[in-house]
Amino acid sequence: MQPFTNLARLSLNQATTQRWSLREAIEGCARAGIPAIGIWRDKLAEAGVAAAVRMVRDAGLHVSGVCRGGMFPAATAAERAARIDDNRRAIDEAAALGTDTLVLVSGGLPEGSRDIDGAREHVGEAIGRLVDHATASGVRMAIEPLHPMFCSDRCVVATLGQALALAAPYPASAVGVCVDTYHLWWDDTVWDQLRAHPDRIAAFQLADWITPLPAGVLTGRGLPGTGCVDLARFARAVADAGYRGWTEVEVFNDQEWARPGAEVLADVLEGLPS
Amino acid sequence: MQPFTNLARLSLNQATTQRWSLREAIEGCARAGIPAIGIWRDKLAEAGVAAAVRMVRDAGLHVSGVCRGGMFPAATAAERAARIDDNRRAIDEAAALGTDTLVLVSGGLPEGSRDIDGAREHVGEAIGRLVDHATASGVRMAIEPLHPMFCSDRCVVATLGQALALAAPYPASAVGVCVDTYHLWWDDTVWDQLRAHPDRIAAFQLADWITPLPAGVLTGRGLPGTGCVDLARFARAVADAGYRGWTEVEVFNDQEWARPGAEVLADVLEGLPS
Repeated sequence: MQPFTNLARLSLNQATTQRWSLREAIEGCARAGIPAIGIWRDKLAEAGVAAAVRMVRDAGLHVSGVCRGGMFPAATAAERAARIDDNRRAIDEAAALGTDTLVLVSGGLPEGSRDIDGAREHVGEAIGRLVDHATASGVRMAIEPLHPMFCSDRCVVATLGQALALAAPYPASAVGVCVDTYHLWWDDTVWDQLRAHPDRIAAFQLADWITPLPAGVLTGRGLPGTGCVDLARFARAVADAGYRGWTEVEVFNDQEWARPGAEVLADVLEGLPS
Repeated sequence: MQPFTNLARLSLNQATTQRWSLREAIEGCARAGIPAIGIWRDKLAEAGVAAAVRMVRDAGLHVSGVCRGGMFPAATAAERAARIDDNRRAIDEAAALGTDTLVLVSGGLPEGSRDIDGAREHVGEAIGRLVDHATASGVRMAIEPLHPMFCSDRCVVATLGQALALAAPYPASAVGVCVDTYHLWWDDTVWDQLRAHPDRIAAFQLADWITPLPAGVLTGRGLPGTGCVDLARFARAVADAGYRGWTEVEVFNDQEWARPGAEVLADVLEGLPS
């Protein structure tokens, strides 16, 4: 199996070309022959939802997903409620863009908290409060485990096992998981989990692991093929589990962001696993 | 249970006071009333093994463990054999210092490799080749899982589960695991694993998780009490599992290293979980 010998299911997550506006990213995908784009809400807000819908449609692009909902834990009930409301808007935006996927990054520990179990429980409750609205909107929530180095300040969901456990109470059609190679490559338990829960794979994202990590560790990912992750193994694993959705390339990297976007896209296509 | 209301089982891992020589660290422990020290091999080499043995004995200190063996994966058979030999010397040094514990940090992926499973297998084989010498020397190897952010370049053993699996083929008296709060705090599976494998807990190390992480991520740990890790929960978990060994404070932090060691030790004692 060679999942990337054609581009038919490839998507550019626009974080990879961070300095491009939404319009530039859409045009860049069209020029590169990439049929889909993963859209970030900050870029969407800049463009305006109605304008974004038109741009995507005019370019004939698919939207693989919206990044991101989540960020649920908070110190006060009022703040937690506000975050739920914001996630309802994220669902609406995904529906408007014609995608069936909203990626959720759960959020980190509330300031001063050491209660990691409690934070994860709160994430599960928040997702539960969104299930009806998401289902009615035709949008599936994809819980994304981030690498454990983000556990305190960005995402208390640090493993695929934790994401699957949070999704378990809800129908797989409403709540799935996002499998990102950068976040999961070190975890030997993912292979059995993917086999055991094929119906939960809602999104698949590619980035490579390179070192040294930069300060803050957010923007040190590698383009596919530049690091030590066996990306082809992940591609086979999700395909073998029956996943037929998009493969998003999502790379946060200061050096790549400083380059012309078209060159970055060319390198993305060059580095994909065959 | 309040594991730290007295200092009787506390040890200073000398990495916490990185700029102190072995002699200075030994004198610092004595002044602070800390009864044990975890010794690093680079500091030991500076002091000389025979001199170190005398210094420790003269100060009436215990040696909680030696850091570190391991660093097994390598690209060539000759290099791998050299690393096994070096680990035999580490075992000899631990025995000379009168400690029963050698902490193993497995090493990262060989240059250019994407074969994480293969690297972990190699770690297991290397440990197997050391078991007889360690047992004959009265030294137990403690496989330390490092945080997954170190998986590529420092330690392919990234979870307690992986460490336990590597230890499993060998007697618990010969091969155990090192439980370090900094490396494991994000993992919800550790609590059941500690309960299920109480006889494998060979070492217990404390550091706290703080952000933002510095470039390279090695030297960003927090003194106990300064971060988001529920240290008391870990202390209870290992105690409940029957662990009665040392609690080493091991903090890699550039800012702490720039401070006078005695002040750092005072803050260590202040921040311990009660």
